[in-house]
Amino acid sequence: MSTPPISPLAPTTIPRPVPVAGVRMAAVNTGTRYVGRNDLMLAELCPGTAVAGVFTRSKTRSAPVDWCRANLAGGVARAVVVNSGNANAFTGALGVAATERTASAAAKVVGCTPGEVFLASTGTIGVPLDAGKLAAVLPEAARELSADAAAWDAAARAILTTDTFPKIACEQATIDGTKITITGFAKGSGMIAPDMATTLSFLFTDARIPAPVLQALVKAGADRSFNCITVDSDTSTSDTMLAFATGRAAHRPVERAGDPRLRSFRKALFAVQTALAHQVVRDGEGASKFVAVKVSGASSGGAARRIGLAIANSPLVKTAIAGEDANWGRVVMAVGKSGEKADRDRLTITIGGIPVAANGQVVPGYDETPVAAHFKGQQIEIAVDVGVGRGKATVWTCDLTHRYIEINADYRT
Amino acid sequence: MSTPPISPLAPTTIPRPVPVAGVRMAAVNTGTRYVGRNDLMLAELCPGTAVAGVFTRSKTRSAPVDWCRANLAGGVARAVVVNSGNANAFTGALGVAATERTASAAAKVVGCTPGEVFLASTGTIGVPLDAGKLAAVLPEAARELSADAAAWDAAARAILTTDTFPKIACEQATIDGTKITITGFAKGSGMIAPDMATTLSFLFTDARIPAPVLQALVKAGADRSFNCITVDSDTSTSDTMLAFATGRAAHRPVERAGDPRLRSFRKALFAVQTALAHQVVRDGEGASKFVAVKVSGASSGGAARRIGLAIANSPLVKTAIAGEDANWGRVVMAVGKSGEKADRDRLTITIGGIPVAANGQVVPGYDETPVAAHFKGQQIEIAVDVGVGRGKATVWTCDLTHRYIEINADYRT
Repeated sequence: MSTPPISPLAPTTIPRPVPVAGVRMAAVNTGTRYVGRNDLMLAELCPGTAVAGVFTRSKTRSAPVDWCRANLAGGVARAVVVNSGNANAFTGALGVAATERTASAAAKVVGCTPGEVFLASTGTIGVPLDAGKLAAVLPEAARELSADAAAWDAAARAILTTDTFPKIACEQATIDGTKITITGFAKGSGMIAPDMATTLSFLFTDARIPAPVLQALVKAGADRSFNCITVDSDTSTSDTMLAFATGRAAHRPVERAGDPRLRSFRKALFAVQTALAHQVVRDGEGASKFVAVKVSGASSGGAARRIGLAIANSPLVKTAIAGEDANWGRVVMAVGKSGEKADRDRLTITIGGIPVAANGQVVPGYDETPVAAHFKGQQIEIAVDVGVGRGKATVWTCDLTHRYIEINADYRT
Repeated sequence: MSTPPISPLAPTTIPRPVPVAGVRMAAVNTGTRYVGRNDLMLAELCPGTAVAGVFTRSKTRSAPVDWCRANLAGGVARAVVVNSGNANAFTGALGVAATERTASAAAKVVGCTPGEVFLASTGTIGVPLDAGKLAAVLPEAARELSADAAAWDAAARAILTTDTFPKIACEQATIDGTKITITGFAKGSGMIAPDMATTLSFLFTDARIPAPVLQALVKAGADRSFNCITVDSDTSTSDTMLAFATGRAAHRPVERAGDPRLRSFRKALFAVQTALAHQVVRDGEGASKFVAVKVSGASSGGAARRIGLAIANSPLVKTAIAGEDANWGRVVMAVGKSGEKADRDRLTITIGGIPVAANGQVVPGYDETPVAAHFKGQQIEIAVDVGVGRGKATVWTCDLTHRYIEINADYRT
């Protein structure tokens, strides 16, 4: 496979990751699939690190997802191992054995129990993962562990599959006046899809936050960031977001998610999640436009999100955007098919801030010219008010282009 | 717009429609949108014709759908008017007025009440329909009404939009030893997904069947035919299936849907519905392969259908088929995302009858060669057993190709 061209929507500069106290990183090559690049990341977390996670709801989820869900109950993490190139999904008993072997090997080199090791795998589905190759390189990875930004950067790159750029986001916050760092990285090339499965995200902070509180914050943020993006409507078997709080910051501990001292942290965490989610969309397979779909007036926030996803997943809407065709009738169609309550005769649509339809019909004297001009840009905004309530949501997606077909009709060959 | 090439999946011969006693047809041009072809069909039905209908469940359904739903309660039909090029959807009060005006004009030329006139429109959404143009040509259409097969054929062609061939199906049945004819035609090419695909279908029979019985038969057949097809997951604002029974056949009347005398008729009706549904898939925008997805072992028939649709709608599955890539991991993914109960560790997949995966993993000694050969054909069959129950369903779809992008990124321009 030749290296794909970098997405036209990629950020102009890739942020340098800000290391988080209590975390060391390493990246190595296992020889599993990729040649000439690292494909395994090891993160070592200091004792006392709290962990939280959000996972795919797929009924055919991967063995590593099962592994992490089981370990999450312990609330403590000492190591993370992520490999790229093989998803260890749909691999039956062999897949379970591969997670056990990898975790045991990592536990040994880091000095912890397998229950404190978290795993994630992405890549091809249905091909048994040779955990021996992972176990074989973990001692080398342990020797290379480093707290340097360069090691973080290498880790963020080792987890990539069909991505065309690494996704990194860093924010600072304060708790009780103490400076807190949050650094995250993610992979996902629109692969909101399995065969190079999907999104993996890893968030690290030095805040002193117990696992249940971290879980509540991470879940709430995921629902409004990663759970509001779509590239192709295909949910992966491997989607994983893991968050780790090392507790190295000097503030007094936080005991509940509603603590007002968390305001700044919560905002920064959400900013990191949103930035990573947007970068995933910007690397969507074949993407040439970044699209925000804003839905208001729905019967609830969940209904608004589902209407937004119906619009964002519609092949007809996505191809209209690719074709720079201001075909807003397709947005009307997508609202209608969502299954959510909507008042056809009060429906209002604006595109790039320009009123297009109101009260269930095209606005008087509608001029397509400025809307067509907006569609020529790289950032598209479609806003819809469905006229039945106060529910709101924003969903982000990209367009559907020839390049998507090229990538996905030829992927394995 | 130049004429698109005929779908490579089109039937080799288009059936000549068999006229049904009690029905006369005409096709004319209104000057609405299409040049050099007819875009309006008028059908005149003899007094006493019973009517049944199944419609889109879209929340942004068109004015003609509302019109037909309201008239269905009367159970009697004397005329059908169908125009192509403008969907009269999302047109507000103007759209309602357009249906009233069209129905009044048709009632006048046929000699009935507007409540006995049924309407359907397809084409662009959100552009007011000039009903004056329709009303203006209805007298001419009435003069041209004919019971000839040629008139039926012209009607079947007048309702097309982006279709590349007319969809026609005819079957014969017997009730009480009396020969019964069923002739149907349909349109639909894109925006095709259940409930019920941007399809318009019109079924005619000379059977003596009262409206409630006809309704039960038509709905049951639609659920296993038109409601089991998808091209692009986009549900239209206009989907309409109307069935008309003129009662000209000489058998004793039928009074209930469970009457055993209906066995042959029921089978023939379903055959017409299935044939039309398959033809719609075969004319799917950009389709190069016809795909049957057979799901078994689901918790119910409905669950099986939803799993089948998750597979059939997956862009990754559809592009793999377009690329002739036996990438069955994407099928696993699609089962997982369906939200329906499935046992990952009992999942079985066969492709073209060849076992690919069993008990949650690839079959021992899997050889991709025969599967790859099957994928090179025009007819693809994917069978999945999800291992939790006895629910079964078959869903039909097509692949997702460059041609789909071409058609839909340029549709209006």
